[in-house]
Amino acid sequence: MNFASDNAYGAHPAVVRALAECNDGAMMGYGDDPVTARAEAALRDLLQAPDAVIRFVATGTAANALVCAQLCPAGGRIYCHEDAHIETSECGAPEFFTHGGKLVTLPGEGGKIAPHVLADALRIGAGGGLNGGRNAMVSITNATEWGTVYSIDDVAALAETAHRAGLPLHMDGARFANAVAALEGSAADLTWRAGVDVLCLGGTKNGAMAAEAVVFFDPALAEGFDYRRKQSGHVFSKQRFLSAQMLALAEDGLWLDLARHANGLAARLAEGVLEAGGSLLVPVQSNAVFATIPAAAHGRAQEAGAIYHLWPDKSAEGLDPVPIRLVTSWNTPHADIERFLAALAGQQT
Amino acid sequence: MNFASDNAYGAHPAVVRALAECNDGAMMGYGDDPVTARAEAALRDLLQAPDAVIRFVATGTAANALVCAQLCPAGGRIYCHEDAHIETSECGAPEFFTHGGKLVTLPGEGGKIAPHVLADALRIGAGGGLNGGRNAMVSITNATEWGTVYSIDDVAALAETAHRAGLPLHMDGARFANAVAALEGSAADLTWRAGVDVLCLGGTKNGAMAAEAVVFFDPALAEGFDYRRKQSGHVFSKQRFLSAQMLALAEDGLWLDLARHANGLAARLAEGVLEAGGSLLVPVQSNAVFATIPAAAHGRAQEAGAIYHLWPDKSAEGLDPVPIRLVTSWNTPHADIERFLAALAGQQT
Amino acid sequence: MNFASDNAYGAHPAVVRALAECNDGAMMGYGDDPVTARAEAALRDLLQAPDAVIRFVATGTAANALVCAQLCPAGGRIYCHEDAHIETSECGAPEFFTHGGKLVTLPGEGGKIAPHVLADALRIGAGGGLNGGRNAMVSITNATEWGTVYSIDDVAALAETAHRAGLPLHMDGARFANAVAALEGSAADLTWRAGVDVLCLGGTKNGAMAAEAVVFFDPALAEGFDYRRKQSGHVFSKQRFLSAQMLALAEDGLWLDLARHANGLAARLAEGVLEAGGSLLVPVQSNAVFATIPAAAHGRAQEAGAIYHLWPDKSAEGLDPVPIRLVTSWNTPHADIERFLAALAGQQT
Amino acid sequence: MNFASDNAYGAHPAVVRALAECNDGAMMGYGDDPVTARAEAALRDLLQAPDAVIRFVATGTAANALVCAQLCPAGGRIYCHEDAHIETSECGAPEFFTHGGKLVTLPGEGGKIAPHVLADALRIGAGGGLNGGRNAMVSITNATEWGTVYSIDDVAALAETAHRAGLPLHMDGARFANAVAALEGSAADLTWRAGVDVLCLGGTKNGAMAAEAVVFFDPALAEGFDYRRKQSGHVFSKQRFLSAQMLALAEDGLWLDLARHANGLAARLAEGVLEAGGSLLVPVQSNAVFATIPAAAHGRAQEAGAIYHLWPDKSAEGLDPVPIRLVTSWNTPHADIERFLAALAGQQT
Repeated sequence: MNFASDNAYGAHPAVVRALAECNDGAMMGYGDDPVTARAEAALRDLLQAPDAVIRFVATGTAANALVCAQLCPAGGRIYCHEDAHIETSECGAPEFFTHGGKLVTLPGEGGKIAPHVLADALRIGAGGGLNGGRNAMVSITNATEWGTVYSIDDVAALAETAHRAGLPLHMDGARFANAVAALEGSAADLTWRAGVDVLCLGGTKNGAMAAEAVVFFDPALAEGFDYRRKQSGHVFSKQRFLSAQMLALAEDGLWLDLARHANGLAARLAEGVLEAGGSLLVPVQSNAVFATIPAAAHGRAQEAGAIYHLWPDKSAEGLDPVPIRLVTSWNTPHADIERFLAALAGQQT
Repeated sequence: MNFASDNAYGAHPAVVRALAECNDGAMMGYGDDPVTARAEAALRDLLQAPDAVIRFVATGTAANALVCAQLCPAGGRIYCHEDAHIETSECGAPEFFTHGGKLVTLPGEGGKIAPHVLADALRIGAGGGLNGGRNAMVSITNATEWGTVYSIDDVAALAETAHRAGLPLHMDGARFANAVAALEGSAADLTWRAGVDVLCLGGTKNGAMAAEAVVFFDPALAEGFDYRRKQSGHVFSKQRFLSAQMLALAEDGLWLDLARHANGLAARLAEGVLEAGGSLLVPVQSNAVFATIPAAAHGRAQEAGAIYHLWPDKSAEGLDPVPIRLVTSWNTPHADIERFLAALAGQQT
Repeated sequence: MNFASDNAYGAHPAVVRALAECNDGAMMGYGDDPVTARAEAALRDLLQAPDAVIRFVATGTAANALVCAQLCPAGGRIYCHEDAHIETSECGAPEFFTHGGKLVTLPGEGGKIAPHVLADALRIGAGGGLNGGRNAMVSITNATEWGTVYSIDDVAALAETAHRAGLPLHMDGARFANAVAALEGSAADLTWRAGVDVLCLGGTKNGAMAAEAVVFFDPALAEGFDYRRKQSGHVFSKQRFLSAQMLALAEDGLWLDLARHANGLAARLAEGVLEAGGSLLVPVQSNAVFATIPAAAHGRAQEAGAIYHLWPDKSAEGLDPVPIRLVTSWNTPHADIERFLAALAGQQT
Repeated sequence: MNFASDNAYGAHPAVVRALAECNDGAMMGYGDDPVTARAEAALRDLLQAPDAVIRFVATGTAANALVCAQLCPAGGRIYCHEDAHIETSECGAPEFFTHGGKLVTLPGEGGKIAPHVLADALRIGAGGGLNGGRNAMVSITNATEWGTVYSIDDVAALAETAHRAGLPLHMDGARFANAVAALEGSAADLTWRAGVDVLCLGGTKNGAMAAEAVVFFDPALAEGFDYRRKQSGHVFSKQRFLSAQMLALAEDGLWLDLARHANGLAARLAEGVLEAGGSLLVPVQSNAVFATIPAAAHGRAQEAGAIYHLWPDKSAEGLDPVPIRLVTSWNTPHADIERFLAALAGQQT
């Protein structure tokens, strides 16, 4: 019963199989191989973006931080939510890769930035002169760090706000599959058609071992990106193995199936939490549940061996009700959900 | 009538004279000269810190950012007030010099951090794991960006909080002279005796052309600092001219006299603002006045040619009352104050 | 017949198997898993270094550059061979990760630095003052970029020279297995017993998909290293998959068997090159052959479909004899060697 | 008798006077002042470059390294002479400001790069793929670190070579005045008319306290430069004092007069060195003399109190003849030259 993170589970069998299948024989290194070509093509199809430039890296932090470096010039300001992964969970990687980019954080319910909040911040930022730096880019996460989802209209409104200020819009899609699975509409609708300029499309949380795609919908934005990857140690010599993972997820809609599984389990968790007397801190829209549960229920769940994080951190220990975060993944067993909910509810199982 | 900033006025005649006086003859470069030796000694005296390592740079941004680089290792978190100069007004220099240090900003009335707010933030930061980074240093500004002043006890409480967490305390003293002038107690009392580990002692706003001192009270903290200065282009070949400026300010208490002048004018401004129907946003303790004034008074001041900033920015234009910032300097004329206050009050002058 | 690089072939079946075998169930992320613990222990055993701190990353560039960042402070000078991978083939990664470390390159036959050349350079570097920067570390590659091997005595002499100057010695061991396979003596003899302080032990060229180990023989040198890894995007959330690769190589001496295979093929290539009228540019000691071959032989090899690099680059095209580089790997087929040599020799096959 | 460096002497009286003269009254900070406007205009006139973007910083290292950052993107290669100041004497500043730019050093007699050497290097660099990085810029120094001077034709040939490869040409003109004084032809002839894209025009060695101009002949190349300056702490709040220095040098041809003085003294030194049995290591073309002198003459000079550097470093102590470097400046006294030469020659004075 591990609900600590969607990286707790391993890789989907199709991913492991894909590694074995592309293993034979010699290929040129550094991406000049047929597996990479197929994987890039598969993602362009998936995104209906025939001109997109696509590159693979192994971690979400690398993907996000490299994109920040690509889009944020010296003295630049990067606008993001105050709970954005790039702000809270990447150990300063965006600042490191950008050599001093300033993350300007915005409040917003459920991990979402409201367009008028962004617009106000951009206006203030534009007036900061040399001392304040210059507006450089906007970054949103979808699905968000709170498990909520920006709708296509939400994204379009933020993109319009960013573009009006002359800035590109980056989407951290570590859980992009979960966002698409949560919505009516295609991956294209949620990204370039809505105005997203660069997407980090996560494979790892979706069922890969370690693979993320960086997607530049406008090829001009990718200029020199490969040098950045190499200079930061993120070009694989045997790149076929990175590419094969993304290819396996992209084929036959596997990526969406896996995300739907995770989302479905989270919805079930949410129900059960409410039934056990808990309440939700934000609406459950993808694969994470932020809730408070009675301390007694928490105690029973712990006793039953459930693993999950108190929220936002261990200082929540001892509160009643207890705020917690539960995350489901592509491989979380149904049975674990039911066992956990039974424990919450104090039922025999 | 320029109240835009305390850098609006030039240099004190003694500073200019000092440059001319040390100009003759050949000296070795890069700080290996007798003027530098005397200036360093003078500041050690001023601070009653015979073991301190002292270095001069030309800008406050350089001083602060170099100290951050010195104290903040890879993945480090730097705690400061949300209105700190290093956060708002250095164009990302701390992030640039630290190669990705994360500025963690804290709220606090009047630009001051409260010890319990710091303690809470440090506790949370200590639990962030690799993703969150590691606590690295605490930075406070005195006098603050709001013109308020941390007392000796205030500083000691923050130093104790920082030290308990194993972190050094940096003081951005761009207006250090104004802080000392505002308090009972010596420069030593306000710094190392209260627990400050590194001080940036500002010369520029105090009456120099462009000179700041970086003071490491613990010489061990200065290890390798000269290489950082050089690598960032902040070592002067004809360093005597940097040193001479600080020496001139340190001699005969000139630095304090100039700060008292500025502080006194600000106090007078505050009185006049109140008399003209304005109100103070924070107590006036050094050389800055943050206030709101009636729009009519603002109009009259503008008409009379007064130069000052709306606060926090131009978006305040059109409000009634109008929030403004007034800064006085070592050389602001008494007459300008009176003329300005007369305009505010609608009096003939 | 691909002799372009030892990264042309995929991963050893045992590596692929290891990924599948550790795939089941939930584990904590970021290295807090049992597979990582076992892999670290296995490498400590392999190196007879029970106190070593060991960390895994996915690329050799990351491993080397992160170690440089760890060992080279601001304004530091990094001494290496002029053909070192960190100088020629990492796109500035060491400079990027160190934020401006200066690579000081030394000449030396066969890719090897002579101790007196190092000693002279360190002496000059020590006298460069602020402008020149400070000596920081020494980096050698074993096996070298020219396929030669530093003996245990060679390493000890360089280590002594570095240590006498107060500097740590780093070994880029992208082909460390090939070096050990080429020598009498253990991995311990060639590293910490000879004075190596930090080793990058390559897995990728040795038969992994993408895995390298960074080994700090002195745990004190590893302080804060994990933050660097994270800040540069080199911490894997599902780290078990990185660890499992290294574990598979370490078990049952597979790493050495694979290196012996590659070395043996290179020795056979060298013989055949000489038989075909070519000559060796440097002695063949590990898994690379640098040679000149008659233009006619080159033509026949090309026609037969052999893939290899002209050396140092394409400008060698048209020369007679032609300088070339041939690299063998853990999986290069014996039959390819013979077919290639037959083509060189102009024999029917 | 200080011939250690041209930064051994202070500032020209006109420079000191200029500081005093612009000291009165309040001005806006950060360059938005009339003195800066006049200084920029004066330099545009001096260079006959009405569209040039001109910015002032206080040190040559800052000027050069900021320009490198401006012209060298991620993974870039910067071509320069192996004795270039940016390579040998800036403590890694170019690598720091560029975040990992790779300095590719070229040999060349007398500190000068030959066009065919540059062309060959650029061709090789262009073929290095991701691993090698990408060609980014060419940097030359004029007058060179060996006191020689690139003629207008020399510069034009290098510019053509750089431009053919699509690269901009930077000129480190720390001693630009000495180069112009050494040649027939104007500052314009030696820079933009010959193809220089960015010039660092040195004031400090020429007679300023600490002032350098960065000149972008193509304004497009200056995009965002001010943010870089600010982010690295090189924007002065009271910028008038930086500008006034350059203005004083530019007015009435003072800069050229001072350079001619220095060059003339060096020519006289060269004569005297030869008369005393020494020989020149390179032709004396500006204000530096690289020579070997008999050990006895060296002994007499030392005894007489002359200060100069052995070359390339102290290891030359004890050689006979002794290699030395002598540098003259805007303010080196004629009498010192004669006294030094008399000592060399063993004459009574």
